[in-house]
Amino acid sequence: MSNGQLILLRHGQSEWNASNQFTGWVDVDLTEKGQEEARRGGELLKESGIEPSVLYTSLLRRAIKTANIALDVADRHWIPVVRDWRLNERHYGALQGLNKAETKDKYGEEQFMEWRRSYGTPPPELDDDNEFSQAHDPRYADLDTVPKTECLKDVVARLVPYFEEEILPRVKRGETVLIAAHGNSLRALVKHLDNISDEDIAGLNIPTGIPLLYELDAEGKVLNPGGRYLDPEAAAAGAAAVAAQGNK
Amino acid sequence: MSNGQLILLRHGQSEWNASNQFTGWVDVDLTEKGQEEARRGGELLKESGIEPSVLYTSLLRRAIKTANIALDVADRHWIPVVRDWRLNERHYGALQGLNKAETKDKYGEEQFMEWRRSYGTPPPELDDDNEFSQAHDPRYADLDTVPKTECLKDVVARLVPYFEEEILPRVKRGETVLIAAHGNSLRALVKHLDNISDEDIAGLNIPTGIPLLYELDAEGKVLNPGGRYLDPEAAAAGAAAVAAQGNK
Repeated sequence: MSNGQLILLRHGQSEWNASNQFTGWVDVDLTEKGQEEARRGGELLKESGIEPSVLYTSLLRRAIKTANIALDVADRHWIPVVRDWRLNERHYGALQGLNKAETKDKYGEEQFMEWRRSYGTPPPELDDDNEFSQAHDPRYADLDTVPKTECLKDVVARLVPYFEEEILPRVKRGETVLIAAHGNSLRALVKHLDNISDEDIAGLNIPTGIPLLYELDAEGKVLNPGGRYLDPEAAAAGAAAVAAQGNK
Repeated sequence: MSNGQLILLRHGQSEWNASNQFTGWVDVDLTEKGQEEARRGGELLKESGIEPSVLYTSLLRRAIKTANIALDVADRHWIPVVRDWRLNERHYGALQGLNKAETKDKYGEEQFMEWRRSYGTPPPELDDDNEFSQAHDPRYADLDTVPKTECLKDVVARLVPYFEEEILPRVKRGETVLIAAHGNSLRALVKHLDNISDEDIAGLNIPTGIPLLYELDAEGKVLNPGGRYLDPEAAAAGAAAVAAQGNK
């Protein structure tokens, strides 16, 4: 049996990436540039000869559309699809909708970086009647409680069990699984896959639109720690751009 | 419990609809016009307040993309998705790829209409080494035999059992199921839903991009025979246009 493959794809630029706003669970669309990134992601898949056999996405438009576009370009539009809220971006609490640069100016660099990168400190909770709340969104109607804020530790706590129960068994069987998701849900997954410490994960940034390939054996062991970006040069430039967010 | 809803959506104009070629299982893309039709279908869903809870599609790009676009417009992009080959268009056999008007000129009106509209007469089989064959397409690798041609009766034979086992139970439970599929796979389904005779189904044409709504009770009985198009005027014009295909 051949080894399994796990392909992580962070959605392309969204409208609020472009306007430098905290997004979280707010369901903003891709920009034209984001759609172009998704097409490029699809071309990279096609050129590499990697053929996903199943797609997992979050419930958010920017990840869903990125996957739709990339798989269409890669001629894999017809594979089965599973969507789950546990692949959603980190819920950014009361920061959702705020401009990142303004937030940094208002609260100072230290608080800003703690909210963005500390492992265990969530931002303040978002009120249910806030225009950017998901408390009454029908897609989360089955959840016992809809998050009001999350830190990365919370994302790990909801995502890793889902990964281990639903996704990893397919990879162990030798399937090629594409996960289309978000900066922080993919950071949570990479933290798990590469056994990165709570401190060191703060320095890890995942670029948009560039497939990141992990190979796993039948026991679920990662054979290429750190993974391999299908376009390493673009990935390095993209990760640096993510790290610079919050600057004007 | 509220009644279940079944929404049938025929894909928008494809490249080979535009060039008047028999398509069948050949995986052609939507035209710009077809994408616009899909957006219109999504607007009709949204205006009607009908909220699909699950999507079923064929394995063909034109139906998948129509659904992706329509659900995005209708803000239902996040619902679960099931894809199955049994919702595919009728396999057009050796006619796949041929121009409809040229085929009519070459074989005559009678033979042409028999291939297009007779219930039980399939076109000649398509050779496995034909450029338009699906014999070696990876998406059908799990099928015991990939069709080489089909008549509408063959489509009914593969589609109706799938509908009754996989889709109808959800409708009976009160769900709202969207099926994005094709002219002939939807004709096969409508034949079943409305108990249309083998003869009369020849006269039924389904327009592109206009959602057709059926309501069913908990026993699976159709409460509005014939269904209801969400834009009846456009549907009547569209059905007439389908009937006129084969003319130059």
